Amino acid sequence: MKAVLVVLDGLGDRRCKSLGYLTPLQAARNRVLDRLAAEGETGLVDVVARGVPNGSDTGHLALLGYDPYTCYTGRGPFEALGAGLSLGPEDVAFRCNFATVADDGTVLDRRAGRLPTEDSRELAKSLQTMEIDGVELTFRHTVEHRGVLIMRGEKLSHRVSNVDPHGKTSTVQKPKPLDDSPEAYKTAQILEKYLEKTRQILQTHPVNVKRREKNLPPANYILTRGAGKLPSLTPFEKKYGLRAAVVAGGALYKGVCKAAGFDVVDVEGATGTVNTNLGNKIKAVTESLKTHDFVMLHVKATDTLSHDKKPREKAGMINRVGEALGTMLEQLSSDTYVAVTGDHTTPSEIGDHRGDPVPVLIWGPDVRGDDVTMFDEISCQSGGLGRIRGVDLMPILANYLGTLELYGE
Amino acid sequence: MKAVLVVLDGLGDRRCKSLGYLTPLQAARNRVLDRLAAEGETGLVDVVARGVPNGSDTGHLALLGYDPYTCYTGRGPFEALGAGLSLGPEDVAFRCNFATVADDGTVLDRRAGRLPTEDSRELAKSLQTMEIDGVELTFRHTVEHRGVLIMRGEKLSHRVSNVDPHGKTSTVQKPKPLDDSPEAYKTAQILEKYLEKTRQILQTHPVNVKRREKNLPPANYILTRGAGKLPSLTPFEKKYGLRAAVVAGGALYKGVCKAAGFDVVDVEGATGTVNTNLGNKIKAVTESLKTHDFVMLHVKATDTLSHDKKPREKAGMINRVGEALGTMLEQLSSDTYVAVTGDHTTPSEIGDHRGDPVPVLIWGPDVRGDDVTMFDEISCQSGGLGRIRGVDLMPILANYLGTLELYGE
Repeated sequence: MKAVLVVLDGLGDRRCKSLGYLTPLQAARNRVLDRLAAEGETGLVDVVARGVPNGSDTGHLALLGYDPYTCYTGRGPFEALGAGLSLGPEDVAFRCNFATVADDGTVLDRRAGRLPTEDSRELAKSLQTMEIDGVELTFRHTVEHRGVLIMRGEKLSHRVSNVDPHGKTSTVQKPKPLDDSPEAYKTAQILEKYLEKTRQILQTHPVNVKRREKNLPPANYILTRGAGKLPSLTPFEKKYGLRAAVVAGGALYKGVCKAAGFDVVDVEGATGTVNTNLGNKIKAVTESLKTHDFVMLHVKATDTLSHDKKPREKAGMINRVGEALGTMLEQLSSDTYVAVTGDHTTPSEIGDHRGDPVPVLIWGPDVRGDDVTMFDEISCQSGGLGRIRGVDLMPILANYLGTLELYGE
Repeated sequence: MKAVLVVLDGLGDRRCKSLGYLTPLQAARNRVLDRLAAEGETGLVDVVARGVPNGSDTGHLALLGYDPYTCYTGRGPFEALGAGLSLGPEDVAFRCNFATVADDGTVLDRRAGRLPTEDSRELAKSLQTMEIDGVELTFRHTVEHRGVLIMRGEKLSHRVSNVDPHGKTSTVQKPKPLDDSPEAYKTAQILEKYLEKTRQILQTHPVNVKRREKNLPPANYILTRGAGKLPSLTPFEKKYGLRAAVVAGGALYKGVCKAAGFDVVDVEGATGTVNTNLGNKIKAVTESLKTHDFVMLHVKATDTLSHDKKPREKAGMINRVGEALGTMLEQLSSDTYVAVTGDHTTPSEIGDHRGDPVPVLIWGPDVRGDDVTMFDEISCQSGGLGRIRGVDLMPILANYLGTLELYGE
């Protein structure tokens, strides 16, 4: 028996004025998703906890069965893993943005004009690995303005504040220790030196000279955030008895799955954007099912469109995914379960994450079923799964797959 | 965005024979509450835990997001705060009743004939503050027969048993240490001396001489209970990003809110009794919303009528509150959320607290909504909020207000 877990990022929503007070899922009324709901079992998921708005990192950890409240320290290590870097248990990893920062510390553009990946690559070459006070700092660019920084050395702490103001203020924040430990103090100090050093390198870098000539914002600063250490997670296969693979565009999702021991399937055209190649991703899922018991398929675009406040386009994307799942269903063996849910709610009239629960459906050969015939936030309120937490989903799925060990005799 | 949390004390009930097997909420069938339920989202709250009957103190702590299992020691400190006393972290506070006690220790009337506040005030004047073995004992009366006692000094403990038999037996209980610490032993001993000393003062007090002349039970004893120390709660504003105020008659409710950092709004005619001035309270709520993000409105009478086993009158009181809320709704700005619930169930044919869940509704600009159209214990079983715990309510409300920090990225 096999299972596919489809995560539509930021799927949950509220009733939208521009959709005649329907949610995007209600407006989409996708025939495939509704069929899965009608034939399967539905419910609502509080991904991390009732009412608590969560990020994609904590959300995916929870959906895969890992309680973020006990294992999560920051987004950095998952981004780093997803970018193909390997991490030791004592390394501290940061998510980074190339940014445009004025001499007085004002952040002029958090993404340096959405720096193209080519420029990012060139700039990253000039940084690579450097050593400060016996600590090794490695920078790696990922997609567009994004990158990761890894600090490796003795006595480092992830308890260091964000340099990236992330919309809260407009100036670069000095990295500060978040507790009284000498480790946090040391890490913050080294990071400060690193940011000053890299600023000098970036400021005069030929890529930036050229960008200034073209009146483009120079990528003259590295904004760090999400400092964390890699948690030591019980491997997914050990926890649930399932060999698992992930099909995703974004680095973060690959990273979370890698941390859980998933195989990462690289898919051409899986960009983590609205233009993702869904056909290729579906092919990758059905291919992976030949060698794996469990495949997670992640689609980022639903969240991107929510952040962009485009409920109609979100509904459209839901329909595109629904149709792609229709194609997938035709190719699945009869012993395959499919679960569909989201990692959090992003109301598309607000454009930001909220803590409202997310609808979930489980479809497969012998699910008990319920009276719900439509897949949306309101219909799923009365589903047979009731109200579950994110960490409940995997035990429920693995139970259907029959791979859970008996507790007691 | 703003929110009003309306707590009807002891709101939950069971089907009552005298109401044709309806609950008081069903019998009231209040048009305003039903409208809020129909337009909003509903559910049931297990205030502290499934099936566990709870007091008003633990219930309110939970509803405000503070887990009583980790922060609660006794009712005393909340009563003391509510009565306008200030408390140090090492002070021990007791809830007190003026009572009528026979010479052999038999409790003839736990409330000394529901002693009027005027008499209570006069008697309290004769007690004020006294010192025993280096410990300062301060008495303050509150409403009717109620009062508080604070012990201040070195090495005191809240682990002291109740003197008030509270219906369990008919005689005054000697205060006993509840653990083996010298602090508990010392505290119990000093309290015993204090009760003897105050008994002598009260016995011959002119107020009681006059009461005996009128054949009224004399208030000749102070029954203590609910010894506790003030917990150090994370301020509500820090927890939820909301400046909060409370509109309530009873000292306990003001006290719990004060402990959480609320501003207490004094309202003329807010008595904490059936004769409370609801109009003034509603005015105080709408006024407070101009300067605060969150206002809790507490109504005690629903619980009082439940304890008095008056289901019909409870239904009547529910209707009075519903109508008052109707007036309030007309004055709210369109970005205001309203939640209505209770702090516990008090079945009005039993006259005592029970652990049945309490109905809850959340109404406001973009709540998801559900199919429930009536506000009562049975209808709310199928509400979209499902079954929540008391401590879940505030995250759910703060999520709607958009003031919660994202957990993860």
